[in-house]
Amino acid sequence: MGYNVAPLQKLIEQFERLPGIGKKTAQRLAFFVLNLPLDQARGFADAILQAHEKIKYCAVCQNLTESDLCPVCSDGRRDKGVICVVEEPRDVIAFERTRDFDGAYHILHGAISPMEGIGVEQLRIKELLTRLDPEDIREVIMATNPTVEGEATAMYLSKLIKPFGIKVTRLAYGIPVGSDIEYADQVTLGRALEGRNEM
Amino acid sequence: MGYNVAPLQKLIEQFERLPGIGKKTAQRLAFFVLNLPLDQARGFADAILQAHEKIKYCAVCQNLTESDLCPVCSDGRRDKGVICVVEEPRDVIAFERTRDFDGAYHILHGAISPMEGIGVEQLRIKELLTRLDPEDIREVIMATNPTVEGEATAMYLSKLIKPFGIKVTRLAYGIPVGSDIEYADQVTLGRALEGRNEM
Repeated sequence: MGYNVAPLQKLIEQFERLPGIGKKTAQRLAFFVLNLPLDQARGFADAILQAHEKIKYCAVCQNLTESDLCPVCSDGRRDKGVICVVEEPRDVIAFERTRDFDGAYHILHGAISPMEGIGVEQLRIKELLTRLDPEDIREVIMATNPTVEGEATAMYLSKLIKPFGIKVTRLAYGIPVGSDIEYADQVTLGRALEGRNEM
Repeated sequence: MGYNVAPLQKLIEQFERLPGIGKKTAQRLAFFVLNLPLDQARGFADAILQAHEKIKYCAVCQNLTESDLCPVCSDGRRDKGVICVVEEPRDVIAFERTRDFDGAYHILHGAISPMEGIGVEQLRIKELLTRLDPEDIREVIMATNPTVEGEATAMYLSKLIKPFGIKVTRLAYGIPVGSDIEYADQVTLGRALEGRNEM
């Protein structure tokens, strides 16, 4: 290529490393950022650094937070007797969006995955076990993903937690609301049938 | 939402402003950047700032460059007698990729678009006219986009340039290589027929 501007190339490469962003999109995004007014470009760069500097993990649930305790753990109106165990912070955002859950969370930051070299030591499991006082905790909901890794993690944790005498539950499987039965895969449909409820 | 971490929210908003990036993707990208090691996150932020600080416009062709002259304008082997007029720096990258053009460029940084409030004053047209010495320039190729705006700009410029006694040409219209005639729109197909060549 006869045409190459190093700082532009570097910016394109940064965007290319993001998940789901290909060469063409990275180029489009880099040109967009380059055309931003200087103060807005500074704002973008600053947002990246601020996110890294200011965000830490909640001392109780391991969620992302600016203070020692996350907004959920420090909220007196939340029911701390029920813990919803999820893989990632973004799962918490999904649950909060439903407005159907007023308990607490625990974020594992991953799932057991021998393929990716993630074992139980890499997950925040120790931190979960220290929370499990049977006098305070009535139920632990396993809300890991319905994948092989998520299932394995849920199974492993339920075996660890049951000896505490605490109820362990798993999210229901079934057909997604608004979907089409015709297009549901057979495993999902089988689970939906298995878990059918009386109307 | 019971869950909101301001620095994370700000980072998500920055990604949301990028073209073609929706709410969900912005969230995914922000979490990715947040999970990067600190030095890599600094590298990303730095690439944004460096691109803004180090890149300026070529004194001749108005392309992005780190020095006073862009790599094309400072390359003695390029034929400066032919100027290819494009709308954006990314168009230059596309032409350079073909390896079929060894002339010079001129970047307008946009096209005439009354709808977006872009008139002839906002484009680098003055800079183009100062380059048009008939003793040096043999041909100006209009390579603006095949859109209403690009066409209008090409028409306007060709009327400005012809009085100099310089040949003005326009990119050929036709069916894209590798495409399917069945799916070609009627205007393109009409142009392809009109511009047919003897085999």
